[in-house]
Amino acid sequence: MKAVVFREPNTRVAVADVTLAPPKAGEVRVKIAAAGVCHSDLHVKRGEWEAPAPMVMGHEGSGVVVELGEGVTSLAVGDHVVLSWVPPCGECRYCLQGHEARCQKVAQVINAKGSLFDGTSRLSIEGEEGEAEPLHHYLGVSSFAEEVVVPASGAIKVRDDAPLDVIAVVGCAVATGVGAVMNTAAVEPGSTVAVIGCGGVGLNVVQGAKLAGAERIIAIDVVADKTAMAMQFGATDRIDASEGNAVEQLFELIPDGVDYAFDAIGRTVTTEQAIQMLGLGGAAVIVGLPPTGAKASFEPLVLAEADQRILGSNYGSVRPSIDIPALVDRYMDGQLKLDPLISGRRSLDEAADALDDLASGGVLRTLLIP
Amino acid sequence: MKAVVFREPNTRVAVADVTLAPPKAGEVRVKIAAAGVCHSDLHVKRGEWEAPAPMVMGHEGSGVVVELGEGVTSLAVGDHVVLSWVPPCGECRYCLQGHEARCQKVAQVINAKGSLFDGTSRLSIEGEEGEAEPLHHYLGVSSFAEEVVVPASGAIKVRDDAPLDVIAVVGCAVATGVGAVMNTAAVEPGSTVAVIGCGGVGLNVVQGAKLAGAERIIAIDVVADKTAMAMQFGATDRIDASEGNAVEQLFELIPDGVDYAFDAIGRTVTTEQAIQMLGLGGAAVIVGLPPTGAKASFEPLVLAEADQRILGSNYGSVRPSIDIPALVDRYMDGQLKLDPLISGRRSLDEAADALDDLASGGVLRTLLIP
Repeated sequence: MKAVVFREPNTRVAVADVTLAPPKAGEVRVKIAAAGVCHSDLHVKRGEWEAPAPMVMGHEGSGVVVELGEGVTSLAVGDHVVLSWVPPCGECRYCLQGHEARCQKVAQVINAKGSLFDGTSRLSIEGEEGEAEPLHHYLGVSSFAEEVVVPASGAIKVRDDAPLDVIAVVGCAVATGVGAVMNTAAVEPGSTVAVIGCGGVGLNVVQGAKLAGAERIIAIDVVADKTAMAMQFGATDRIDASEGNAVEQLFELIPDGVDYAFDAIGRTVTTEQAIQMLGLGGAAVIVGLPPTGAKASFEPLVLAEADQRILGSNYGSVRPSIDIPALVDRYMDGQLKLDPLISGRRSLDEAADALDDLASGGVLRTLLIP
Repeated sequence: MKAVVFREPNTRVAVADVTLAPPKAGEVRVKIAAAGVCHSDLHVKRGEWEAPAPMVMGHEGSGVVVELGEGVTSLAVGDHVVLSWVPPCGECRYCLQGHEARCQKVAQVINAKGSLFDGTSRLSIEGEEGEAEPLHHYLGVSSFAEEVVVPASGAIKVRDDAPLDVIAVVGCAVATGVGAVMNTAAVEPGSTVAVIGCGGVGLNVVQGAKLAGAERIIAIDVVADKTAMAMQFGATDRIDASEGNAVEQLFELIPDGVDYAFDAIGRTVTTEQAIQMLGLGGAAVIVGLPPTGAKASFEPLVLAEADQRILGSNYGSVRPSIDIPALVDRYMDGQLKLDPLISGRRSLDEAADALDDLASGGVLRTLLIP
């Protein structure tokens, strides 16, 4: 099958002919309908994050189940699914406490080894001398391909009437942004919320805050077009960070500071700005992910005296099997906007171009359609 | 009356004859039974924290109500009380949400102005030319004195059979330490907990963690006598931080990192160590307070990927009128140790010596007995 292979940072990714082995016990094979190109893919491509390589890229997608591995009873051939890049093991203490986004086995095996749960890969490619070279899975998904084999817990059944070439984005961008509001921060009705960065994740934070009943939602970006779009997603105010210090502008709007400030970019400066925007008891939520090793600082005295919090949000602290179908339902009943998040659709062959477009800053989500 | 007056940093505090005006509406006068000398007093004395001066020092204490201001119905003359350095206004949005430790009026008036709620002081001293010079209140308490006038919400009625010259420490050290565990962090049974610093607050974090049902409680200090004492307060393991990197020693004991790490010291290095000790989904809690302007750093990528949190804890996030009587009850029924926290009792005249003793590191809590 065709798949997009990443070998080493800062080289152009290429489509290659990859072999996909059948699903083992507890796994399923899914025919991909659409796969989203995300900033995380860009971080990997640029070598800013460590990830086992060579690999098949991609961690967001949707599709249809075409084969069940031994013992899989939770899914049936023909089911429509959204892929989750946390396929909860269901057995570790974090899963048992309901904190599936913290699944220990996912962190220690799927992510660290770039494999499926048994430590092996279903992906391989023919080497120069005809031998089979194993390829790593990326975050247990590897959706830039015609088909994937994933743990059954990473293929989340959703309703059949939702368009697969739209709801693919629920698996990462929407779950991460809305989940950070609903789960990680648990924003209360009447709250004040600042959102730094109005790209794919930030817009989902904005619409998550609207769903949560926030009273003021302040969209912040250096690009005026992005904050304009955020107003359509539910923001009540906007700050153009290119026109001066974003923190000072925020305090002009909300003199006491905000209850919640989301960093949906993940640079040191934006993380520190989010912390500085907080009022009494406020929480800064880190949604956008910075490069490995980047550090941000805060004043512990201020954090303590004002009873404030800094919250890391991995995958919106979601429980995939519960939250992803619910998010799809909310799209279908008109409470969540997904279509404006999708800038365009391209073929797998154009994956490198789609990554370049994302790097240039001009697009939100490009979906690759195999 | 006699009271301990602080005029400027790094001068020796002195007992002086201070005038105390009667309580205004909503205030009460309390005859002090005992007042604890805390590291916060030392921060003020050293000029490490900004506080309105000249002032009467002290923010921890117990006593008996001797006079009611107009309209006070929640207390009666003769009531035994523990003083709270957050006297909740009961009207701001934080109080109404049950987050009394975040009371906005306390932050903006009581703390910022060094006054009572109406912006004025009940304390004054005779100047060199016979004029009355106003003195500031410290955190709405000023307990290093024979008597105080405080907002009625800052005098918390407790049972009559509890010894006042012991339970004074509930008002700050115990509420802060146990509250950080119970309220700020909400430690669950079976959790793993690291406590950096086993002084007055740290020991209360240890016994709070024991009360919360933590499975492992690792006491960390550079002074072996302190971690030995922590074992008596409920710690299950101890780390001598003078014998090497505390974080490395912690991971030898708990390879996956801890669920909760409390910084009960408040230096940049200890705050950063607490963050580095966390496992998946872990929370670092800042209880000990650093000097103004000190900064600590963290890796946002790690915090986000591991779904971790950094929690500031002001006054243990307590609701004084609920939590302080409950803590006194737990002392009386043997679930909390208070007596070993009290290193000695001295007269008001010896306040400067008591502060010196605390600075030397050899004592936990000295109570001043007027």
